[in-house]
Amino acid sequence: MLEAFFNPCSIAVVGVSGDPHKLGRAIYDRLRQNKLAGVLKSRLYAVSSSITEIYGERVYRRVSEINDEVELVVVAVPATAVPDVVADAAGHGARAVVVISGGFSEAGNRELENRLRQVVVETGIRLLGPNTIGIIDPYTGVDTSFTRETKPFADGTWGRAIIYPRKGNVAIISQSGALAYHSIDLFGDRGVGLRAAACVGNQVDVNITMLADYFSDDPLTRVIVLYVEGVADGRGLLNAVLKARHRGKQVVVLKAGRTAVGGRAAYTHTASMVGEWDVFTGCLRQAGAMVVTGVEQMVDVAHLASLQKPPRNRKTLILTNAGGFSVLAAEHININGLETPQLSQQTVEKLLQLRESGAIPAVAVPANPLDLSGSATPEAFEKAYNTVAAEDFGIHLLMPFHIPPPMDESVVEKLVRIANGCGATVAAVDTGYSDWGQRIRKLLTENGVPAFESVEAAAQALSIYASASTPKRDSFPIFQQVHGEPQPMERKRLLSLLRVYGVEPAEERLVYNVDDALAAAEELGYPLVMKIASEKISHKSDLGGVVLGINTSEAAAEAFNKLMNLAKRLGVADDGVVLQETWTGLELLLSTKTDPSMGPVVTVGLGGVYTELWRDIITYAAPVTEEEALNMLDSLQHVRILNGYRNIPPINRRMIAKLIVRFSSIIPENPSINQLEINPLTIRGENVKAVDIRGLETKPTNL
Amino acid sequence: MLEAFFNPCSIAVVGVSGDPHKLGRAIYDRLRQNKLAGVLKSRLYAVSSSITEIYGERVYRRVSEINDEVELVVVAVPATAVPDVVADAAGHGARAVVVISGGFSEAGNRELENRLRQVVVETGIRLLGPNTIGIIDPYTGVDTSFTRETKPFADGTWGRAIIYPRKGNVAIISQSGALAYHSIDLFGDRGVGLRAAACVGNQVDVNITMLADYFSDDPLTRVIVLYVEGVADGRGLLNAVLKARHRGKQVVVLKAGRTAVGGRAAYTHTASMVGEWDVFTGCLRQAGAMVVTGVEQMVDVAHLASLQKPPRNRKTLILTNAGGFSVLAAEHININGLETPQLSQQTVEKLLQLRESGAIPAVAVPANPLDLSGSATPEAFEKAYNTVAAEDFGIHLLMPFHIPPPMDESVVEKLVRIANGCGATVAAVDTGYSDWGQRIRKLLTENGVPAFESVEAAAQALSIYASASTPKRDSFPIFQQVHGEPQPMERKRLLSLLRVYGVEPAEERLVYNVDDALAAAEELGYPLVMKIASEKISHKSDLGGVVLGINTSEAAAEAFNKLMNLAKRLGVADDGVVLQETWTGLELLLSTKTDPSMGPVVTVGLGGVYTELWRDIITYAAPVTEEEALNMLDSLQHVRILNGYRNIPPINRRMIAKLIVRFSSIIPENPSINQLEINPLTIRGENVKAVDIRGLETKPTNL
Repeated sequence: MLEAFFNPCSIAVVGVSGDPHKLGRAIYDRLRQNKLAGVLKSRLYAVSSSITEIYGERVYRRVSEINDEVELVVVAVPATAVPDVVADAAGHGARAVVVISGGFSEAGNRELENRLRQVVVETGIRLLGPNTIGIIDPYTGVDTSFTRETKPFADGTWGRAIIYPRKGNVAIISQSGALAYHSIDLFGDRGVGLRAAACVGNQVDVNITMLADYFSDDPLTRVIVLYVEGVADGRGLLNAVLKARHRGKQVVVLKAGRTAVGGRAAYTHTASMVGEWDVFTGCLRQAGAMVVTGVEQMVDVAHLASLQKPPRNRKTLILTNAGGFSVLAAEHININGLETPQLSQQTVEKLLQLRESGAIPAVAVPANPLDLSGSATPEAFEKAYNTVAAEDFGIHLLMPFHIPPPMDESVVEKLVRIANGCGATVAAVDTGYSDWGQRIRKLLTENGVPAFESVEAAAQALSIYASASTPKRDSFPIFQQVHGEPQPMERKRLLSLLRVYGVEPAEERLVYNVDDALAAAEELGYPLVMKIASEKISHKSDLGGVVLGINTSEAAAEAFNKLMNLAKRLGVADDGVVLQETWTGLELLLSTKTDPSMGPVVTVGLGGVYTELWRDIITYAAPVTEEEALNMLDSLQHVRILNGYRNIPPINRRMIAKLIVRFSSIIPENPSINQLEINPLTIRGENVKAVDIRGLETKPTNL
Repeated sequence: MLEAFFNPCSIAVVGVSGDPHKLGRAIYDRLRQNKLAGVLKSRLYAVSSSITEIYGERVYRRVSEINDEVELVVVAVPATAVPDVVADAAGHGARAVVVISGGFSEAGNRELENRLRQVVVETGIRLLGPNTIGIIDPYTGVDTSFTRETKPFADGTWGRAIIYPRKGNVAIISQSGALAYHSIDLFGDRGVGLRAAACVGNQVDVNITMLADYFSDDPLTRVIVLYVEGVADGRGLLNAVLKARHRGKQVVVLKAGRTAVGGRAAYTHTASMVGEWDVFTGCLRQAGAMVVTGVEQMVDVAHLASLQKPPRNRKTLILTNAGGFSVLAAEHININGLETPQLSQQTVEKLLQLRESGAIPAVAVPANPLDLSGSATPEAFEKAYNTVAAEDFGIHLLMPFHIPPPMDESVVEKLVRIANGCGATVAAVDTGYSDWGQRIRKLLTENGVPAFESVEAAAQALSIYASASTPKRDSFPIFQQVHGEPQPMERKRLLSLLRVYGVEPAEERLVYNVDDALAAAEELGYPLVMKIASEKISHKSDLGGVVLGINTSEAAAEAFNKLMNLAKRLGVADDGVVLQETWTGLELLLSTKTDPSMGPVVTVGLGGVYTELWRDIITYAAPVTEEEALNMLDSLQHVRILNGYRNIPPINRRMIAKLIVRFSSIIPENPSINQLEINPLTIRGENVKAVDIRGLETKPTNL
């Protein structure tokens, strides 16, 4: 469907000016240059209202004047003229249009953007933009960006303004032109090849999801890089990512909006804590994408995945000729959750033999990190690497520092031969922007071993790559959203709903007078908790509406009277007071809500009073599978608390996973529910109790 | 004292070979080159056992043959020959020696290193090394590193292997040659000037502390950068850092060993959790240093501090012509604890006027971040910046992206003029390694505005700079360590000691039979805690030696009998059982210990059962001042828990700070105590109770 954007038989550029600094002209010139260079095979036409000839060729007044099939149209005219240009192009049979022009919704002109959308709907033409730099495809030479590769400095000399990458397997989909340029430039500098870049602009028609889907089908693509500010159809994107992953491609996602906070007066902890960023990145992880937090990291991970398969384990071998680097490398490998296990006795002995024979320097200590010292030659590197590569390290981090006198480029060829023949994921580091640093890195990358400028960057990229999940599910089901005014759910409905889905609430009794309260207290046993029952009050603790640690009947009577008085003042005395057994154990948070983009989602996290301080949560699209639920538990930062901590016994992970699975189907099966939160879900051995519960449900509006 | 290393009147290089690839010869050649270039003013001599003439000049057999005063000697001969060479040089009156040669303790030859140390002690010569690249001083031309600035590639062309920086104000002190090279190269690439670099090697004599002290007195130095693996005399280093800070210099520290863990079977939580890295970095922070976690970050922060004063507030203005960057920049600024407040109404109106008049682009939205759009010219940048620079932003982050067609180098001059005239801390970002990206950054840096390659790096560096403390203390007192076998402190001693220092333990009763237990329980009131009393048992919870939440006399009797039986099995029944009142509130950890390098230190952190999971701790050298104690509280990651959280009221910070001050003087005033830990220290309003206490004390060995 999007083929016409990347590989059209013919292109018309609308808005080609006589002034070479104007956008439309810059785009035309760039395409013409690609055509002269033999890269662009498409026929190329210029359209303009101001000139009639360019480089001796005819310039047309409008697309419909061109006496040829025009497949792709690139538009760079003032915004108000765009809808007519697109309609004219569509009328002439154009299949695709890239609208470079800005001045639509991003500048407050929503109405103009709606008119443009209407042209798309009416004509069926596919539109990328407006307000975009469009497409850069090094394979076909289609390049609608108005960038000049070189630009004159004030002194009259010319310098490269962007380093264009060679052809390769990394596809960039970006919601920002600047971010796309920035990453293209970094890929180019490192020698990483580009499949294509596509910027979506205002997404009037073609959006991130469609492009992700396009590249997931594309045999030239191995890595899809996404820069996302916001996505309307999150589930569509999840399915596109899933397809890419099932076809063996890797997906790297940078999502803006990490610091955006949820609503202050949110009804549940989850609503106040789990923002759009958490939902988006959690679901993308579930679909098998790798989530990064900065542009450099995005490029690092793509660089690695472009050339290497995912690590088969976390055991990392470090090989270097620089002691200081080996110390820092081991540190960053471990900080990033990878491991640096020791060499086997057998390998140590082999290295000692190499040392005896003078094949590696006398000061090299046979350990991991393996520091061969500054006197190591490329030959010593080769012999040492051959020896240690036989061990079961999933990751090799090679750091031949170029400064020591015996080191030269021949080390690259020697290391690469071994790296490409072993089963490990191999990355390399050399530092700095001297000619030597750059040359060694580029040689490594061009020969299939991704080379990074810093130990930290390499360690982070390897860790992210090692943590990517391999999703087993076929698809994410679509969902139907219920519109209306959400209301707090009644306690009876909450309790029965949870029981239906296999979650046992803590024992409780609803009472309206002190005698019943005392009887209920005897029945439940001390210590117990008492609170005002009304679901209309959402922050009971803050109002003094909860009394903990009631140990005696006197205390129970006192608490009841205090709470009843409070309830009367709040006007909710009719809802009574609840007594609940005290239940201690590991406290989790378990919640579900409907996200406008991702649909029903489920959140698991550390619960209890410190929920907001831990902020240790993970959100997946609901319903989840048992394997996904286990992944969620494993992805908690403080996962070791689940394995038994102090006086809390280890949890039965499979049991909790099964509980999460059932809980996660509540909203898919009851779409009128907007939010449902258990905090804490208290786990003590095989006993699991929902201690505090709240929910919001939409009463469908009667029309 | 160290002047002879950096500015000697004469230098002799020992080990000058006929082979230009050998180390000694490479060093001689480099010094000779600096002399020919007029940079090195020192007289230069060659010493060798293998040649008699070099470049037509005489080569001496030994230093003592030279008929001139020799101030600095550089030694690059086999390790075993080094002690004699040094003794000979000292006998000839040499004041300083740099020993490049390796093969000492780092290769297992401790005895040889001891012999070398003895020569130093006996002769009084100052020795840097061995196993080091020594000194690089661009002011005097002293350069003992064996690096070649250029090196031939396999194709016969020559390329730079390291980018030497120009003269400047950053002094590097490093325990690793590779790390020093790496950072020198990065400073050179960015156009940041170097005061000098000094690598300490095995620190037989001259150590990190002495060099830090030297540069703290040096008027050319503005920033001291330290790469530290380990320091014996931590307090000395703290005092050197303090001196540097008091003289207006900045100190940046990268410490190796972040992942090293404490002892597994440690007696206290603190001992198992507060490792050497935490102690070192906490104390360095206390002395006013900035702690970084990677080489790039070290260079970033030094780059910033080299050119800009510390921010006067955290309010950050972002100015750019690239929308995607402004989104990410705001995000990273906020994630790093800085702020992006909105513009005042007055400034907004001025910007609207600029927009009306066409001085800034029509699509520029007057907000912070201020995105002028890709059509902004350098003149638009200047006008917009002039307008917003008048506001009270402590930090300006300028991001003129070079790619959009209207952008050129003239933007640098325009921005720099405003930046240098305003009171803000100004940093800039342009991206990538194209000629344009590099040129714009270098121009900015060379004109006093530090320019970074990434938004993330700039935000992190600014945040670290904004958080550096300005120490008020005059010095860190030296301490006396007590040697001997540490023993668990007796409970009575613990309790009385704490009371003396103003810490109130939770009420408790020691009992030996069930009747006394029940009487004590009535007296203390329920709920209560019971535990076996013996201080010989360190992990009581794990053994079942603690019973919580005892609510009734039946439960109390049952608990007593259970614990007494356990105590009998453990052989500690004679120590009895302790009953303690239950006390709830905010739980902190407060502990003190003697660190082998830093002396008495005090640790404050989040306490309670989750101590090891939070890992939210800060350690300072003891005793601390009240202001330092307040800084400690503020530097906790979850500091907002102290301001009142859920049902925990805010703490009285000043009261807790005073308590920390008194507690921190326990070891300085009682040096036989090795460790003392309160966890939790439970705070509820003005009531503060030490709930769990343990300590180790050395009984001085009777001789």
